[in-house]
Amino acid sequence: MTKGKPIISILEEGMREGMQIESADIPVEAKIRLLDALSATGLKRIHVGALVSPKWTPQMAKVDEVIEGFTPVDGVEYTVVVLNQKGAERRAGFGDKLTLPDPTLGRSRIHLCDVFVRRNINITQQAEIDALQNAVATAQEKGVTHAEISINAAWGSNWLGEFSEDERMRLLQMQHDAWTAVGIPVTRIHIGDPMSWNTPSAMRSMMRRVLATWPDVRDFHLHLHDARGSAMLSAYVAMQELDERHTLQVDTAIGGMGGCPYCGNGRATRMIPTEDFVHLLQSEGIESGVDLRKLIEAGALAEEVVGHELWSKVTAAGPRPTGADVYAMDMPFVETFEEAQHFRRGPSVYEGALSPWREPVQSPGRDEYEARLAAEKESTS
Amino acid sequence: MTKGKPIISILEEGMREGMQIESADIPVEAKIRLLDALSATGLKRIHVGALVSPKWTPQMAKVDEVIEGFTPVDGVEYTVVVLNQKGAERRAGFGDKLTLPDPTLGRSRIHLCDVFVRRNINITQQAEIDALQNAVATAQEKGVTHAEISINAAWGSNWLGEFSEDERMRLLQMQHDAWTAVGIPVTRIHIGDPMSWNTPSAMRSMMRRVLATWPDVRDFHLHLHDARGSAMLSAYVAMQELDERHTLQVDTAIGGMGGCPYCGNGRATRMIPTEDFVHLLQSEGIESGVDLRKLIEAGALAEEVVGHELWSKVTAAGPRPTGADVYAMDMPFVETFEEAQHFRRGPSVYEGALSPWREPVQSPGRDEYEARLAAEKESTS
Repeated sequence: MTKGKPIISILEEGMREGMQIESADIPVEAKIRLLDALSATGLKRIHVGALVSPKWTPQMAKVDEVIEGFTPVDGVEYTVVVLNQKGAERRAGFGDKLTLPDPTLGRSRIHLCDVFVRRNINITQQAEIDALQNAVATAQEKGVTHAEISINAAWGSNWLGEFSEDERMRLLQMQHDAWTAVGIPVTRIHIGDPMSWNTPSAMRSMMRRVLATWPDVRDFHLHLHDARGSAMLSAYVAMQELDERHTLQVDTAIGGMGGCPYCGNGRATRMIPTEDFVHLLQSEGIESGVDLRKLIEAGALAEEVVGHELWSKVTAAGPRPTGADVYAMDMPFVETFEEAQHFRRGPSVYEGALSPWREPVQSPGRDEYEARLAAEKESTS
Repeated sequence: MTKGKPIISILEEGMREGMQIESADIPVEAKIRLLDALSATGLKRIHVGALVSPKWTPQMAKVDEVIEGFTPVDGVEYTVVVLNQKGAERRAGFGDKLTLPDPTLGRSRIHLCDVFVRRNINITQQAEIDALQNAVATAQEKGVTHAEISINAAWGSNWLGEFSEDERMRLLQMQHDAWTAVGIPVTRIHIGDPMSWNTPSAMRSMMRRVLATWPDVRDFHLHLHDARGSAMLSAYVAMQELDERHTLQVDTAIGGMGGCPYCGNGRATRMIPTEDFVHLLQSEGIESGVDLRKLIEAGALAEEVVGHELWSKVTAAGPRPTGADVYAMDMPFVETFEEAQHFRRGPSVYEGALSPWREPVQSPGRDEYEARLAAEKESTS
């Protein structure tokens, strides 16, 4: 039996996760330009920032101006991070532009790392556990009809090392029990990895166990960081374990930027580059609804906005060229990153480069390729 | 039945594949320093350069001086690329330092892309096919006892688009037939991907078909480029398909550098960063024999030698810290790449950074962690 593919949904994190670790001096106007470019790509969910205190996150000091200034596109959900009641009130004021949380969905979350949660949001793991019953009761009073359970720092921590699958399961089970005890079905599971401890083998094992334990849960959400280069691999492995009954939301960021100052890896924390992930989905035959060309333009703009090299491979080299986009046979030597941008900027970028061929390169293989292209074009016109 | 894991062997390509796309002005002394650092990591196979004409590869103009100057380490195989008889003669002159090719192994190779092979080494695909019978006959006369068959530009080309699995299999079968017709068993298969067309799904399907078609072949070799960010993913998928009867050689490069000027992507072509691959193997429980700390030092040196940022994630952020290497709980904000290097350069790199905690962070989780560490230390001392 061939398994079908899960539905993959992308949450673009560049404006939030990325910008929070980039310079606080990036002008609002540049941020709006990037956000509008991202909106035009076909991405359906975009995190636009965090409504937090500017004291420790000066990068978000003018997030209100960004929200006021950008132009929303129909069909795109724009969301923000809020950490407390004050943030929720600020968010409510932007109800015309932002998608507010689904009031029928309850949420609970526990961190596996007591050190990280203290460093990051100044509470303890025990306080999260102690608050669980109350939070569920309050949600029930508000009439939620289903719930998401979440573990954060799930795979391990830069302060406490690796966590076991049993510990992940224990803290998920604790939440699952709390919701089901009051008759609210758990429909979603979120796993966060702020410190990049994901590994493909731990992901495979965990997904299998979760699917076996709670077969009714169909919606998954992964927030994986990439400080050790395995985030796309782990997301891929998760995709492989799921099937057509499931949805998987993967958080990615334009150019792969991301990180929080609390995790100990700073800008080196990174995320899966959205461009590379969309390109991967294409190669796996999974529809993302995203226009890769526009996404790459947004990736190039992101580098301009942050003022340094970012880490998408596809934006640096271009996608695998197909159809009429295959390269010119007599393209000269291409060596630098600038020259490699010919795929979007045209031949001017390599003008004057060395070219070792005495005669123009010809090939019957290319003749056949072009004849096939022409025939395809004719048959569809 | 649980499948065993294949034996993974790494060919370090930084000095060859990497240096050929970096500046021709890098001093010989710096290259020797990097090569000696790589030798000290536990890597068992290192490509040290290419004995080719300096006219079109000026980066290799002084490769003889590099070979003369480096200090070989016992048990490490040092190899070079040669493209013709002249190169083979130059190589023979370094027989004291370089590992010469196994004379009992025959080799054949066909490119799937006629345009690339013309651009790159100035011959045609048809010429490669026409030369096959003769090459096998000559090898037979020389007494080879087994053979490697190889396809290059296997997954696709920037000039001719994607190639089909049937075409890959046809050109492998053609070579397999030529060797077996004269009674020489094929024991190895090499697949090259100079233009980064590998995808995980094509890799999975291909490996399954190859294993089903030639179950006697136990040794595989993958040379994957990473211009589209899927090389480590594809190598991982190949590992998953193999078992304890197999060996898989994966070519990687320190810092992920690599590319040839002929492929159209230049420096953006890249390879799998050796550091990230070794870290991945560790997380999968596969022994590589490589000291990751020393490898990361070599990765940092590589950035110094080439004079710009390279692309290993693990060298940028450090490995997942374990044992006594977990981070200090009161580490201040870490934001820049420089600050993130605390894991190997110590706390001086983040001196003076913001720190938002009024009191030192304490956690019973950390107390337990340290008690466990101390107990382990005691029990092993």
